[in-house]
Amino acid sequence: MNVTDAALSRDAFLDGRVMAWQPRVGYRAATDPVFLAAALPAQAGDAVLELGCGVGVASLCLAHRVPGLVHAALELQTDYAVLARRNADEAGVALDVLDGDVARPPAVLRGRVFDHVFANPPYYDAGGPQADDPGRDRALREATPLATWVDTALRRTRPGGWITLIHLTTRLPDLLAALSPRAGAITVLPLAARQGQAARRVIVRARKGARSPFTLLPPFVIHDGAAHMGDGDSFTPAARSILRDGAAFAFETSVPRGGI
Amino acid sequence: MNVTDAALSRDAFLDGRVMAWQPRVGYRAATDPVFLAAALPAQAGDAVLELGCGVGVASLCLAHRVPGLVHAALELQTDYAVLARRNADEAGVALDVLDGDVARPPAVLRGRVFDHVFANPPYYDAGGPQADDPGRDRALREATPLATWVDTALRRTRPGGWITLIHLTTRLPDLLAALSPRAGAITVLPLAARQGQAARRVIVRARKGARSPFTLLPPFVIHDGAAHMGDGDSFTPAARSILRDGAAFAFETSVPRGGI
Repeated sequence: MNVTDAALSRDAFLDGRVMAWQPRVGYRAATDPVFLAAALPAQAGDAVLELGCGVGVASLCLAHRVPGLVHAALELQTDYAVLARRNADEAGVALDVLDGDVARPPAVLRGRVFDHVFANPPYYDAGGPQADDPGRDRALREATPLATWVDTALRRTRPGGWITLIHLTTRLPDLLAALSPRAGAITVLPLAARQGQAARRVIVRARKGARSPFTLLPPFVIHDGAAHMGDGDSFTPAARSILRDGAAFAFETSVPRGGI
Repeated sequence: MNVTDAALSRDAFLDGRVMAWQPRVGYRAATDPVFLAAALPAQAGDAVLELGCGVGVASLCLAHRVPGLVHAALELQTDYAVLARRNADEAGVALDVLDGDVARPPAVLRGRVFDHVFANPPYYDAGGPQADDPGRDRALREATPLATWVDTALRRTRPGGWITLIHLTTRLPDLLAALSPRAGAITVLPLAARQGQAARRVIVRARKGARSPFTLLPPFVIHDGAAHMGDGDSFTPAARSILRDGAAFAFETSVPRGGI
């Protein structure tokens, strides 16, 4: 990645409420970090940590929705960390971007715990095909095992604090296995492109040390209509409120107590 | 449980296509074994084993939908096994009901493998409140750990054969943990009482030794309308076709390859 401005684009998220410089070529933030930010049950005054923040889109979207958070973020790739600092500066958000590896967090992090830790870990495992751009490749590829991301997230969360992750549905068994012994109140929100389609993404939220049972929420549907329509203007009202207006997911749902 | 006929009712499943004697007081089969039977990808000639068959409702519903299977079943409680044999006899189904414990299957089973193993394991763990009736209590209570049910199911399945389970959604992490190392192509079908409600039951299907990725299907909705309506006649057309007409679940769905 080349960080001269000519190699960058300045892209709009939340309908322009959040702007972020990112490389024209390489890993580019799209909807996943926006969905991730909309899933945190954070409140003003909470300390939050994003693992693998890239250029900072999830943290900045969260800062927009919940002012008054104390933000830290960790990023392995220096060029992305530089852009995350620049994006935060331009947004007026005090985002403390630390250089370092999720597998071996820097000492300054190892001494802290947070009310919330969140991440959008790489989606593809180490054996898959290589992306053209080395930065994009590293951002997409799971050089660090998913269980290590979850382990670091749990270690940096205070007892009773929250872990929030977005990942491919195919990795849900691995996510649950990594979370289960040490976190409870695990809630899965499937993200389906369209009504009736299998969800390709899941948001997983869990509470460190909690004992409450596992919950599987109804799918959140992103696009209206059938698959052959263009996606551009087809967001459901609920998806539009999150992606354009910066709303939060409604994680509370009707869980009937009796009958099936 | 008393097995004199006065203590029994003869109940209709699949709109009367399957009839089964079961105790008036005690564990009583309802919709779960019918849903379970509708989820097996079984074909004529396959050998199938039900673990913990109770009075045999799931096996008999499966036999109705797929004639020509070779059926075995295991039941710990003698009184239920006696009724399962009687129900199978009256239905003209050659159901080989073995007395024994899922945790220690009889020798005759340990020498066999099946194309399909299926179960509706007890839903409540050993520490919960006790049911009034000892037979119902044992049928509902998890005296044998869920992981043992899955282990026995996997051992008795041929490589490439299928395991099909129905259980509470709260136990999905445990089910996935027990299945993951030895089975693949794990597919979860959530059963939701109504559209937009969290699913309280899941059907989990997996293939022994397979490597295909995990899939989370869209919820199957059982009742039409809002929660305040009576449930009696409110089945969705899809639920009615399974519970009344003996149809199979459509496990195949649209899993888009690109985009979210």
